[in-house]
Amino acid sequence: MSGRSLKVRRCLPAEGPGEECAVFAIYGHRDAAAHIALGLHALQHRGQEAAGIVTFDGRQFHVHRALGLVGDTFSKRRVIEALPGHAGIGHTRYSTTGASMLRNVQPLFAEFAFGGLAIAHNGNLTNAAWLRRQLVREGSIFQSTTDTEVLIHLIARGSGDSHVERLVGALKAVEGAWSLVALFDDAIVGARDPLGIRPLVLGRLGEAWILASESCALDILGAERVRDVEPGEVVVAGRGRIERFFPFPRRRSRFCIFEYVYFSRPDSIVEGREVYEVRKRIGAELAREAPVAADMVVPVPDSGVPAAIGFAQASGLPFELGIIRNHYVGRTFIEPSDQIRHLGVKLKHNANRGLLAGKRVVLVDDSIVRGTTSTKIVAMVRAAGAKEVHMRIASPPTTHSCFYGVDTPERRQLLAARHTVADMARLIGVDSLAFLSLDGLYRALGLSGRDPRQPGFCDACFSGDYPTRLVDQERGERQEELPLVLEEA
Amino acid sequence: MSGRSLKVRRCLPAEGPGEECAVFAIYGHRDAAAHIALGLHALQHRGQEAAGIVTFDGRQFHVHRALGLVGDTFSKRRVIEALPGHAGIGHTRYSTTGASMLRNVQPLFAEFAFGGLAIAHNGNLTNAAWLRRQLVREGSIFQSTTDTEVLIHLIARGSGDSHVERLVGALKAVEGAWSLVALFDDAIVGARDPLGIRPLVLGRLGEAWILASESCALDILGAERVRDVEPGEVVVAGRGRIERFFPFPRRRSRFCIFEYVYFSRPDSIVEGREVYEVRKRIGAELAREAPVAADMVVPVPDSGVPAAIGFAQASGLPFELGIIRNHYVGRTFIEPSDQIRHLGVKLKHNANRGLLAGKRVVLVDDSIVRGTTSTKIVAMVRAAGAKEVHMRIASPPTTHSCFYGVDTPERRQLLAARHTVADMARLIGVDSLAFLSLDGLYRALGLSGRDPRQPGFCDACFSGDYPTRLVDQERGERQEELPLVLEEA
Amino acid sequence: MSGRSLKVRRCLPAEGPGEECAVFAIYGHRDAAAHIALGLHALQHRGQEAAGIVTFDGRQFHVHRALGLVGDTFSKRRVIEALPGHAGIGHTRYSTTGASMLRNVQPLFAEFAFGGLAIAHNGNLTNAAWLRRQLVREGSIFQSTTDTEVLIHLIARGSGDSHVERLVGALKAVEGAWSLVALFDDAIVGARDPLGIRPLVLGRLGEAWILASESCALDILGAERVRDVEPGEVVVAGRGRIERFFPFPRRRSRFCIFEYVYFSRPDSIVEGREVYEVRKRIGAELAREAPVAADMVVPVPDSGVPAAIGFAQASGLPFELGIIRNHYVGRTFIEPSDQIRHLGVKLKHNANRGLLAGKRVVLVDDSIVRGTTSTKIVAMVRAAGAKEVHMRIASPPTTHSCFYGVDTPERRQLLAARHTVADMARLIGVDSLAFLSLDGLYRALGLSGRDPRQPGFCDACFSGDYPTRLVDQERGERQEELPLVLEEA
Amino acid sequence: MSGRSLKVRRCLPAEGPGEECAVFAIYGHRDAAAHIALGLHALQHRGQEAAGIVTFDGRQFHVHRALGLVGDTFSKRRVIEALPGHAGIGHTRYSTTGASMLRNVQPLFAEFAFGGLAIAHNGNLTNAAWLRRQLVREGSIFQSTTDTEVLIHLIARGSGDSHVERLVGALKAVEGAWSLVALFDDAIVGARDPLGIRPLVLGRLGEAWILASESCALDILGAERVRDVEPGEVVVAGRGRIERFFPFPRRRSRFCIFEYVYFSRPDSIVEGREVYEVRKRIGAELAREAPVAADMVVPVPDSGVPAAIGFAQASGLPFELGIIRNHYVGRTFIEPSDQIRHLGVKLKHNANRGLLAGKRVVLVDDSIVRGTTSTKIVAMVRAAGAKEVHMRIASPPTTHSCFYGVDTPERRQLLAARHTVADMARLIGVDSLAFLSLDGLYRALGLSGRDPRQPGFCDACFSGDYPTRLVDQERGERQEELPLVLEEA
Repeated sequence: MSGRSLKVRRCLPAEGPGEECAVFAIYGHRDAAAHIALGLHALQHRGQEAAGIVTFDGRQFHVHRALGLVGDTFSKRRVIEALPGHAGIGHTRYSTTGASMLRNVQPLFAEFAFGGLAIAHNGNLTNAAWLRRQLVREGSIFQSTTDTEVLIHLIARGSGDSHVERLVGALKAVEGAWSLVALFDDAIVGARDPLGIRPLVLGRLGEAWILASESCALDILGAERVRDVEPGEVVVAGRGRIERFFPFPRRRSRFCIFEYVYFSRPDSIVEGREVYEVRKRIGAELAREAPVAADMVVPVPDSGVPAAIGFAQASGLPFELGIIRNHYVGRTFIEPSDQIRHLGVKLKHNANRGLLAGKRVVLVDDSIVRGTTSTKIVAMVRAAGAKEVHMRIASPPTTHSCFYGVDTPERRQLLAARHTVADMARLIGVDSLAFLSLDGLYRALGLSGRDPRQPGFCDACFSGDYPTRLVDQERGERQEELPLVLEEA
Repeated sequence: MSGRSLKVRRCLPAEGPGEECAVFAIYGHRDAAAHIALGLHALQHRGQEAAGIVTFDGRQFHVHRALGLVGDTFSKRRVIEALPGHAGIGHTRYSTTGASMLRNVQPLFAEFAFGGLAIAHNGNLTNAAWLRRQLVREGSIFQSTTDTEVLIHLIARGSGDSHVERLVGALKAVEGAWSLVALFDDAIVGARDPLGIRPLVLGRLGEAWILASESCALDILGAERVRDVEPGEVVVAGRGRIERFFPFPRRRSRFCIFEYVYFSRPDSIVEGREVYEVRKRIGAELAREAPVAADMVVPVPDSGVPAAIGFAQASGLPFELGIIRNHYVGRTFIEPSDQIRHLGVKLKHNANRGLLAGKRVVLVDDSIVRGTTSTKIVAMVRAAGAKEVHMRIASPPTTHSCFYGVDTPERRQLLAARHTVADMARLIGVDSLAFLSLDGLYRALGLSGRDPRQPGFCDACFSGDYPTRLVDQERGERQEELPLVLEEA
Repeated sequence: MSGRSLKVRRCLPAEGPGEECAVFAIYGHRDAAAHIALGLHALQHRGQEAAGIVTFDGRQFHVHRALGLVGDTFSKRRVIEALPGHAGIGHTRYSTTGASMLRNVQPLFAEFAFGGLAIAHNGNLTNAAWLRRQLVREGSIFQSTTDTEVLIHLIARGSGDSHVERLVGALKAVEGAWSLVALFDDAIVGARDPLGIRPLVLGRLGEAWILASESCALDILGAERVRDVEPGEVVVAGRGRIERFFPFPRRRSRFCIFEYVYFSRPDSIVEGREVYEVRKRIGAELAREAPVAADMVVPVPDSGVPAAIGFAQASGLPFELGIIRNHYVGRTFIEPSDQIRHLGVKLKHNANRGLLAGKRVVLVDDSIVRGTTSTKIVAMVRAAGAKEVHMRIASPPTTHSCFYGVDTPERRQLLAARHTVADMARLIGVDSLAFLSLDGLYRALGLSGRDPRQPGFCDACFSGDYPTRLVDQERGERQEELPLVLEEA
Repeated sequence: MSGRSLKVRRCLPAEGPGEECAVFAIYGHRDAAAHIALGLHALQHRGQEAAGIVTFDGRQFHVHRALGLVGDTFSKRRVIEALPGHAGIGHTRYSTTGASMLRNVQPLFAEFAFGGLAIAHNGNLTNAAWLRRQLVREGSIFQSTTDTEVLIHLIARGSGDSHVERLVGALKAVEGAWSLVALFDDAIVGARDPLGIRPLVLGRLGEAWILASESCALDILGAERVRDVEPGEVVVAGRGRIERFFPFPRRRSRFCIFEYVYFSRPDSIVEGREVYEVRKRIGAELAREAPVAADMVVPVPDSGVPAAIGFAQASGLPFELGIIRNHYVGRTFIEPSDQIRHLGVKLKHNANRGLLAGKRVVLVDDSIVRGTTSTKIVAMVRAAGAKEVHMRIASPPTTHSCFYGVDTPERRQLLAARHTVADMARLIGVDSLAFLSLDGLYRALGLSGRDPRQPGFCDACFSGDYPTRLVDQERGERQEELPLVLEEA
């Protein structure tokens, strides 16, 4: 999988699963904003379209949100200096629907009768549209189209003696996946949904407490990884205290298995497992399940690299960089009218012609979503002279959409939802195609296979087994559309 | 009065009454946005810090708001083209409290259970802070610090079968001055408070209906002035219909007398009177009340010009441009460290040295607020060699703050609130100083004088006679402050 | 005359004579840049499209140039702080031919074998294209299309022991009108062509020396006007010295008479005369030469105002603001597809309907160039109900183009070059039309009339009597065009 | 080697060899600009600070230059549309010395007596400062500080009947390394210095001819690689013709050996050799020359990857991603005041803790320049728990500065110029350190070793054997400094 250039995304059907979001929070460091900026930079792979930071300086909240990469905005001294305080939260976001949707950029902040509160959220609420409609009927005014704003209004209308009680009250009303961080008054809060679908890790830097989507955001700061926040846990860190609660009924956890396949950074430890190690084992399982006689193993960079290394080591075939990635991306160029074949994919990838010519190649990629990029990459590899192209996919066929925060296309656009593996091989143009089995994926995670009664992970994108109700889906609810806004400072 | 350079305003104590706001609405023209932009340009004198337009294209709302002059933003083709539709409203705004307060720029738009609605407002609600506090307690989330947003939440929580009923319901809860325009579904609405403190005029351009703060916004379009919207009137223009309602208890109107003194453009007809004509009559009254032996009448440009012409014609003294205005303004320059005397005033004005040297000069200005600019102008005229400087002010002493949408300083900063006319003359440095009497001002408006039992105008800034309750003042309510926000697209 | 909105200029045939340029220089003040910015702001009426400042801090030169008004750029602290030094020169420019022609913005700076030198120039060299062609043949590389760059290359290739000798050597090669300022090493230079066509004044502020196009730039700083730089004079101000030279053959001066009619600010003293006073006398002459029975005298603002006051005083008719100017200009708005009549003129002017209805009006404007704006203004005044419209023009018919720095259209586009006054009256739609006679104009300047053998002023635009050779005109030379450049920082 | 974040570069001593530049030219395609933009994007690794394109449409030249990445500017439709034409050249640039040095961005364009000509250049002229001083003395005016502008003035002052003769005449006067492309009238030109120090390749796309720094710029367009332009060759492609000349004395070529070590993209073929293959052979040589008992081979990404693969394959040790690179770079963040250890390196790299803990690691990097980044990376790998760290460098010690277009620090800042390998090992903190031998490097290139009498490559950075005169060095010439310029559109 590849093709994450965002401009292409907007115009063309998406090529792969979209990134999701990342959250970060810190309490107890006088340079909160600078640390949040660094943490978000380490989490940039989870969302590139916008970023935001809210800090609290003991008296007042400070907000800055902007479209673009974290480093585009939050590397500026004047921006960081305008965000004073010892506590704060941040967010990077993948998907906005228009250049101007600054209103949708998180964290969201609101002034309640009991004080200010900011929230940032990774995941997706599966009953947000339905709840939103109820709230609007009762007179709530929405300013964004994010599901996060539903939480804001639930808090505003809720009751409870403390900020945390009010937040928990709101969380009890929502369904879906939510790993969130919140900032109020003089504390930060982290919370994961009862199934723990999205990751959240707790860290420590000197006296400061940190919450982050992945452990790589701790590493950049030299912070220590304490533990994962547990499914259904609410953790509160403030002046001289850290407390945890489990206010929701306990359930067996269902962590997103796709975090291991694609989302998380290979140097992160998520939900207790090292991502790089899992991916290499996935490659090794794949080599065992679907071996092939070939001259070399070539990853589709960068996401296919660890699995390709695992495949090469298990198979004894040499690992080679047969496709070179151009890392200066993020733009769609104007296509010359005299069409260049497969321009889109060439903006990011080039075949290593000298290496591939006349060779039998095993291409390793993490997943196939629509199949369009795979088709182009295979054509490019063949044009470079490869004699045989065998594709090995480091996950099972993606047959179902995600409703938990991953920007997958509708089901009918998923190649594997409509085609057999044999058909897919033909469409993509490979000599052979194999996916890792679902049991193989669980084996790579250290289990003996998938137990269908209690699978241990959310694998709905491969199995269709959704672990929560999908209220909005069931009711045909749609997010309200706000007016088209084009705002300038 | 002069010194409206906005940057100066932010750093230094303001020099004169602030401008207020302007509203504009059109229904039934396919180029609604282009017409609104032109109308707002004609009303630019009422507010220079920000502008916004919302249009409705029969299906969807479109919004664009920006800091700066109307022409900075709404002269761009891409902006106008992004605002399609046959109906729309616009607003220019004077006062924002920070560079980034785009959220405070009107029109405000909200999605209600019954559909979308946009509002723009000229005036000030005197119980907005108190209402806001109630609404937040009940779970409303505010996104701006404008009093207009109080109306949005009152509408959201209100009842009524139609949009208009809901809007009227909200208006019944508020006190103060409000000339507003609203846009919903397929109609525009204009409404004035029961006292009609701020102006609003109805116009017609072919089949299209227009609402505007002043008639000069009709002239730029070649539109016909139909009539003023009446105090307490709600007028609705939509497809093939125009209707009016008087849902509030009828009261004797109290139009803002300061509109004639300073705010309105001299080529406008507001509340039935020609502004230029009124100002000339003010000058003539002033010449009668406070004649002076002198060589020439010199206006403080531009606001003092019509009264100076009236004064000159009534007194028989020659009218001369003794002070030249630099119209390339809107900026505060960096003051050289080696202080230049009276730099602030010189950015905009220069004395016509050759003309003034050795002469006895009558300076005519519209009002004195803090007195700082007057002091500098008099010093400048004296430095140019004037032998005598007699100041004549085209209004009574400004002794009270305005709570109806004019950005006046607190009372203790008003020169006339703390000083006799003789003291003021000394402080400003003139040989003589005279203000128009309150009765004289009423005479210039065609009345025989001010009737204290039913004055006919709001003249609170001169008399302290406020025609509505000042709830927030009485209760010591303060507008909530939003967090400091620094947002970029 | 009116219609100086620059965007309109680019798209439509220009409405009036273009503005030209202004220069400013200071030596011996530690805040040189801040003073230059203020001086240029006072001279903004001479050129609104771009501005630039070069300073010298004793060691190094610093340059900042930008499109837009002086205040758009040079009011920023960081810009002024990036221009340290005790000496510097500045320029505002009217005419650039493309949004990106930053390279044409003056001052121009070059590094010569003998050190750095910056030049800014008001005027026009009538043999610049011919010289340029010679220089390019000899291997000079041009970076701009300005005639000023010809001077740079002449200096680079010239000889002489001192900077001033080299500069004078270059000036001896050029023909035309040039009031220039230069900065080098540790001195500023001012120079005027032998005929003194464009103005330049010398001032003093404490120990600092100042050169400026008009005296109003001294007034803003509180600087003292010492004297005009004389025609053919070169003045050098440096550490502890000021010197003057007259290196060119002495000739009788021919100062631009149009500076009094239109260009210079009414509060300036140029070439020894007070502009406001001259304009009033022009109006009085006009009233004597072409009296008319009417109800009021109405200026076309702002340039017609002083002449209208003079006309009113001489004729005894009342002076009235029958046309109100909107000072928030500089933009062309998108014209609604459903054409608004005379929109262009309405962006800046509105007729004062109540005043004009049923009246006999004398309209006073400074000049007629193409006549298009006059036609629209007359139509607007008539639409406001004026019974009669008599136009009086405060200068003779403009029959010839200017080659000395005024952006006039080609001769065939000048209304008076092709039409009799009677025809013009009909075309413009007035009941009567009269221009001031050329002798009348000289009388207003205190002479007994124009002496054709030695007129005392350059009045070529009215008389066709050009006081210098027009080499490029005679030879059909054209300025080279640089490639279309679109550059971004 | 790593650490190419440009902001860091400006403030801190550079961490590695700087990138240089890339050139691209096309003749005979109606979408010249779009193709150039894509070609430059593929060459972005050679220079990230600025880019420019000049096109010729048969009548006129069009220029656009901008700071930033190619995709920041040349992905915009309006920019490409403003660059019409069937011929053009482009450039990306690494090193500019200030945010505003747009004047230094290539291509440079000039209008000569014989027409317009644009030039873009990769390399460095070793007598540019000396030539510049001569030219300024003769009256040439420089606008940039680039050595390329020297060529412009030599052409302007030169003779010859044709454009090409004039260009060749200028090239005969310069010393050093230059692979340049030029555009004039209706042809493009490519030229390499007699030693062929920098690369240039000729390609074909349909009827169009292409010149590019590396073949990867042909691949992105689907163009065919025809051949390398030869050392000392001048090739001209125009309407219906392509011609080549060898106007310089033939010499044995000395292609830059560092292109294979680091600069060129691994998927390029430069000077006839596949870069990826050479790098893998370098790794294999290194494994043979300096074997080590270890658990894994870990590349410093991305430049160390191919050599690490070669090392792993030759040594039989597993290849592992022990350091993960964050590809969202290009920014320096604000360092929190409470110092984070090794923050700089962590912005781009993170150790894969789970993999490294307790292991003996062979780190492979391409070169050591200052050694600061290596030190930080080693510390990071140790902090992740590595038991032993053995560093293997895929090139000989860098002991000398480059004067041929590579931005290396001065000699005294090169770690290997002042220290033995043993000292370096201690300073960097590794258990062992080894560099590839110079003979080993030549073997990896297919030769039997380095022949000191005629080495075949420029290896001056490793050997101090500079193949041309270093005139400016010898004479102590310095580039003139232009004034500090801060320009805005």
